[in-house]
Amino acid sequence: MKRQLLDIDQLDDGQIRWLLDRARALAAGAEPARRRGTIANLFLEPSTRTRVSFELAARRVGLEVVNIEHASSSSSKGESLVDTARTLAAMGVAAIVLRHPDDGAAEQLARELGGAGAAIVNAGDGKHAHPSQALLDAAVLEACDIDWATARIAILGDIRHSRVARSDLALFHRLGARELRIVGPPEFMPEPDALPIATRHAALDGALEHLDVLICLRIQRERIAAGQYPDGASFHQHWGLTEARAARLQPQTRIMHPGPANRGVEIASAVLDSPRSLVLEQVRFGLHLRTALFEWLLDPNANPSNGES
Amino acid sequence: MKRQLLDIDQLDDGQIRWLLDRARALAAGAEPARRRGTIANLFLEPSTRTRVSFELAARRVGLEVVNIEHASSSSSKGESLVDTARTLAAMGVAAIVLRHPDDGAAEQLARELGGAGAAIVNAGDGKHAHPSQALLDAAVLEACDIDWATARIAILGDIRHSRVARSDLALFHRLGARELRIVGPPEFMPEPDALPIATRHAALDGALEHLDVLICLRIQRERIAAGQYPDGASFHQHWGLTEARAARLQPQTRIMHPGPANRGVEIASAVLDSPRSLVLEQVRFGLHLRTALFEWLLDPNANPSNGES
Amino acid sequence: MKRQLLDIDQLDDGQIRWLLDRARALAAGAEPARRRGTIANLFLEPSTRTRVSFELAARRVGLEVVNIEHASSSSSKGESLVDTARTLAAMGVAAIVLRHPDDGAAEQLARELGGAGAAIVNAGDGKHAHPSQALLDAAVLEACDIDWATARIAILGDIRHSRVARSDLALFHRLGARELRIVGPPEFMPEPDALPIATRHAALDGALEHLDVLICLRIQRERIAAGQYPDGASFHQHWGLTEARAARLQPQTRIMHPGPANRGVEIASAVLDSPRSLVLEQVRFGLHLRTALFEWLLDPNANPSNGES
Repeated sequence: MKRQLLDIDQLDDGQIRWLLDRARALAAGAEPARRRGTIANLFLEPSTRTRVSFELAARRVGLEVVNIEHASSSSSKGESLVDTARTLAAMGVAAIVLRHPDDGAAEQLARELGGAGAAIVNAGDGKHAHPSQALLDAAVLEACDIDWATARIAILGDIRHSRVARSDLALFHRLGARELRIVGPPEFMPEPDALPIATRHAALDGALEHLDVLICLRIQRERIAAGQYPDGASFHQHWGLTEARAARLQPQTRIMHPGPANRGVEIASAVLDSPRSLVLEQVRFGLHLRTALFEWLLDPNANPSNGES
Repeated sequence: MKRQLLDIDQLDDGQIRWLLDRARALAAGAEPARRRGTIANLFLEPSTRTRVSFELAARRVGLEVVNIEHASSSSSKGESLVDTARTLAAMGVAAIVLRHPDDGAAEQLARELGGAGAAIVNAGDGKHAHPSQALLDAAVLEACDIDWATARIAILGDIRHSRVARSDLALFHRLGARELRIVGPPEFMPEPDALPIATRHAALDGALEHLDVLICLRIQRERIAAGQYPDGASFHQHWGLTEARAARLQPQTRIMHPGPANRGVEIASAVLDSPRSLVLEQVRFGLHLRTALFEWLLDPNANPSNGES
Repeated sequence: MKRQLLDIDQLDDGQIRWLLDRARALAAGAEPARRRGTIANLFLEPSTRTRVSFELAARRVGLEVVNIEHASSSSSKGESLVDTARTLAAMGVAAIVLRHPDDGAAEQLARELGGAGAAIVNAGDGKHAHPSQALLDAAVLEACDIDWATARIAILGDIRHSRVARSDLALFHRLGARELRIVGPPEFMPEPDALPIATRHAALDGALEHLDVLICLRIQRERIAAGQYPDGASFHQHWGLTEARAARLQPQTRIMHPGPANRGVEIASAVLDSPRSLVLEQVRFGLHLRTALFEWLLDPNANPSNGES
């Protein structure tokens, strides 16, 4: 069975453990393995950091990379995604890294390809999943010696529209996190029956007590207008991680953000740049996690999975 | 004299034979030769498959590739095409792969460059020519053991606006195809005196009898509106390769499409995916034909031409 | 202290001399040195020639290149430039080649990064500076055996909005040029106290007498409308380098243009293509100067500077 990365749920525990340990080893200086072939970055939403991170990671393991972005792609001629993918596979592309605006696009594409052709890597699909982000977040926390059995982690902001929140929660739960909280304004909270593994907090101050990790999500500016906030500063005052709120966090609380951050909206600029912020470590581990991912993806015999160990 | 690829007519028989045989050998596993230098993909129309195919082919022979697409190019500042080409040549670019919306753009550019500077490869210019597509189509058919002396080939659809139709017909005629047919609605047929090497068919059913190969062309959706078809489904019913029509084809008839296809417009989805469809073979041979092309283009001493053989 | 290229003023005389001599040696066939690492081309304004020139130069010294262009970048999500730069640095990018529409953007970014992270190379910021263009222009002139002590150089056109004019004048003055002139219509001349190292000419004919070098600047078509010229032809008649004006230049006068040129606006087409025109030499030396620049940038121990010699 071909390896892919569609969602956290699709990985077994052994695979998750291998990816996290390998990312940490690469961050500590291990030499990337070499793989042969070509991958395509098929980005149908704008992105700098994720596309560049995948591109650099692929090259580190010796892969060729072709970049396909929306404005110039055949999708502007109405070609279906699966036809684009089959075309790339027929050219010998071994894996397609897909960023797509629709929920579930990566899984649907993998299903339509039916095990043949290129492996699919979900680089973010709508508000559904962003598994490589969750894996890199976990790798960063393990490099900070997090103890999952005692860890209390909160995610703050626009949970409803966040693929990062969904993937982070799924992975941290799998890793045994003690407590997962979600907090944000009512219009940004998920449907009542969604995300049962997390505790809902309607008040910000209570949600920030006794935390090991606080993850701030990006608030899209157009969503502020849709709520009752006249501008970013007003949102910041009501729901942002201000300097005052950051000062009341416990000393050990680490702060994360998947980026790109709106300084002064969901997070104060000084907090984003403070020593407790892990944002640049997230970027750094992004490269290593994705390097590990390509090692794993393109050599199914090299790494254990649950079934094999 | 520098080698270029502007149109089928410019190739001699020995060059055509070498390119087709070499593409087939590469498809069968031959190792690409190595060339040195840089090529530029200068794509002034949107394209995924052709640009990526040239990019991967160039890298297979060891070439560096720079991609220049319309939105970010100097042409948006009003620079003429020949000045862009001279600039690239002055930077040491050995060949320019040009996709351009205007008929004859590649030949005009080559003429203005006057034999100096970079070699020009026509990757599709307006409705004029797409020679690498024709060569890869012929290579696919030869890999299917076509006998040109007995081959009956039809092209269905928007012949009038199709550079693929023009180049395919020119090449298949050169290779000695027994019969070439064109068929489509009146508004998509070429001028009365154009394409005399093909037989015109005004009725679809007759044109599909006793065929070895049927090539369906992409219908641009904006052209459907210009005709008398309210939508793609209506066009499909009148002029598309429906499942019913495909079922009446002779058993040996192979189906081709240059892609990207509009499923349910010019061709039924099930027909495109059927065993008689060669569309993915066309993509696969596209890579090999363009690999052969770069081998030939950048080493004029390596391969025979009529004059030398 | 990390090396960067922000403006001519920031280079010491030894660094300028090393870059110019090295570019000339590379143009004469010297083998580029090898460097390791990745650079990012971050182009927030459209450009072909400068981006491709930096890309090819970086690859010649063995660097990996990632291209980030405006339409697909995180800046379209509102991320600040410094956050983008920190992100790229956290991914291991050694240098960022920045093209930006705002005056002083490169220096501001370098200041905000504070010596940490990636080196910044200014590839043109607003109407402020374009130091690699000035260096390549000087390298071309030295390859033509210019004698700076006797050199009379004029810049013609839209001086007010030209980063090329500012950087050229600063560098040629440093190199000891005998006389620097600026000339153009009143609305394109700089503020009265700006550019004191140059002599202002309000009349075109006088400014063109006894010249060694005449640099024509690109006139943006939208600026013609803002002046009193109904079209490019009218501007050409009043302020362009027509064939008649070129015929009255002294025989030794060389003509330069940073490109892309508007043929028939600031310069007659035949003049741009005449033997006295150095425009393609400028492109060719652009590659060599930027190759030298990457050699210098990424190995601070390899090349002398004033303080070391």
